[in-house]
Amino acid sequence: MKILTVDTSSNCSSVSLSDDATLLGECLLGEDRSNSGRLMDSISGLLRAARLAPEGLDCLAVSLGPGSFTGVRVGIATVKGLALATGKPVVGFSSLAMLAMNLPYSSAQVAPLFDARKGEVYGALYRCGALPDAVVADAVLSPADFLALVREPTIFVGDGALRYCDLIRDTLGELAIFPPWHTNLPRASAGAVIARETAREGKFTPLAQLNPTYLRASEAEIAKRKRDSL
Amino acid sequence: MKILTVDTSSNCSSVSLSDDATLLGECLLGEDRSNSGRLMDSISGLLRAARLAPEGLDCLAVSLGPGSFTGVRVGIATVKGLALATGKPVVGFSSLAMLAMNLPYSSAQVAPLFDARKGEVYGALYRCGALPDAVVADAVLSPADFLALVREPTIFVGDGALRYCDLIRDTLGELAIFPPWHTNLPRASAGAVIARETAREGKFTPLAQLNPTYLRASEAEIAKRKRDSL
Repeated sequence: MKILTVDTSSNCSSVSLSDDATLLGECLLGEDRSNSGRLMDSISGLLRAARLAPEGLDCLAVSLGPGSFTGVRVGIATVKGLALATGKPVVGFSSLAMLAMNLPYSSAQVAPLFDARKGEVYGALYRCGALPDAVVADAVLSPADFLALVREPTIFVGDGALRYCDLIRDTLGELAIFPPWHTNLPRASAGAVIARETAREGKFTPLAQLNPTYLRASEAEIAKRKRDSL
Repeated sequence: MKILTVDTSSNCSSVSLSDDATLLGECLLGEDRSNSGRLMDSISGLLRAARLAPEGLDCLAVSLGPGSFTGVRVGIATVKGLALATGKPVVGFSSLAMLAMNLPYSSAQVAPLFDARKGEVYGALYRCGALPDAVVADAVLSPADFLALVREPTIFVGDGALRYCDLIRDTLGELAIFPPWHTNLPRASAGAVIARETAREGKFTPLAQLNPTYLRASEAEIAKRKRDSL
């Protein structure tokens, strides 16, 4: 089963192409502020390298968030476009589960953290073997509230872990583990591992129901609610 | 410190661009039989995305093997060319240490294995935290001889692990762990983590001494020796 997987849930963009349990290729760009432009370059580059047309894919996969509002929408919109054009089925997955899968079979539980701005993080706790297993479900909360959930050695990964590393160290001391820095970027290929299992179970998401997992209201929604309540 | 890292030691090719402890981007292609052509595309694509010219790099890094004879030479030749053109210093690293770093802070030791053909593997045993620590040094040997070195739970990764997975399972039973499939491709970014430490210690390799780690004689050398001994 050939799967094209897209993640733009943070300020990075990442695309992978896989065939069953074989990774054919992956492109990731950190700090990709123009990810709408680069994303299609990465997709077409990977397909070209594999001598594959979009019609040759069996499935499309995309991270649904939580993460950057704009980023998540760019990823979902791109995959919806490809799905409409090719008629291929789509599966979605959690961006935090994907990030946790950078550290499979780790000696401690993994805390994937995205910086959610406004003094908050998108975070969760996972144990990852062949697949991610959530210990604490994806949530948006203050770093202090998140750290209160941690009572055992934990590997902190992602841009939220980097942003709040001093607080994490001060709060948890030796319980806090920071992995090598190449694991801090979300990788579409880790999402593809999750997506493949979802697709094998036939759990595709109808396009009309392929929605972002925001976990909190957007700035625009908050402003609208304020206006409406006046 | 901006480092461009190249790996073509297997039949995959991988390039990463990093700045200190931040990964700016990475491209990997599995089964890249024409890696000499694609490699320069990946390098220029990553530099372009980061708006960086080769002169803006501080250091070049390359995997020295063990691995495919042609692949290792393509990687080293490419990096030597870039080093000659830009005058930037170069560091080398082990391809097996790089592959092991796909599983940092793992609950078991890691056995990175490349298929060396002729019934042999390039293999080693590492424990990886912030950096890889060799338990058994890089070697070329039969899969059976390698497995005789394994007496505790071990994570097997790489194309050699895939090729000999039945033998590994039959020999080791529950001691053998196979990680999610997205970890089986070598990643230049994992090499960059090693290379950065080497560069920080000032351990650059003069170009004239930047040689492949073959561990065994090439087909051509074996044929020559046979001819010479006649």
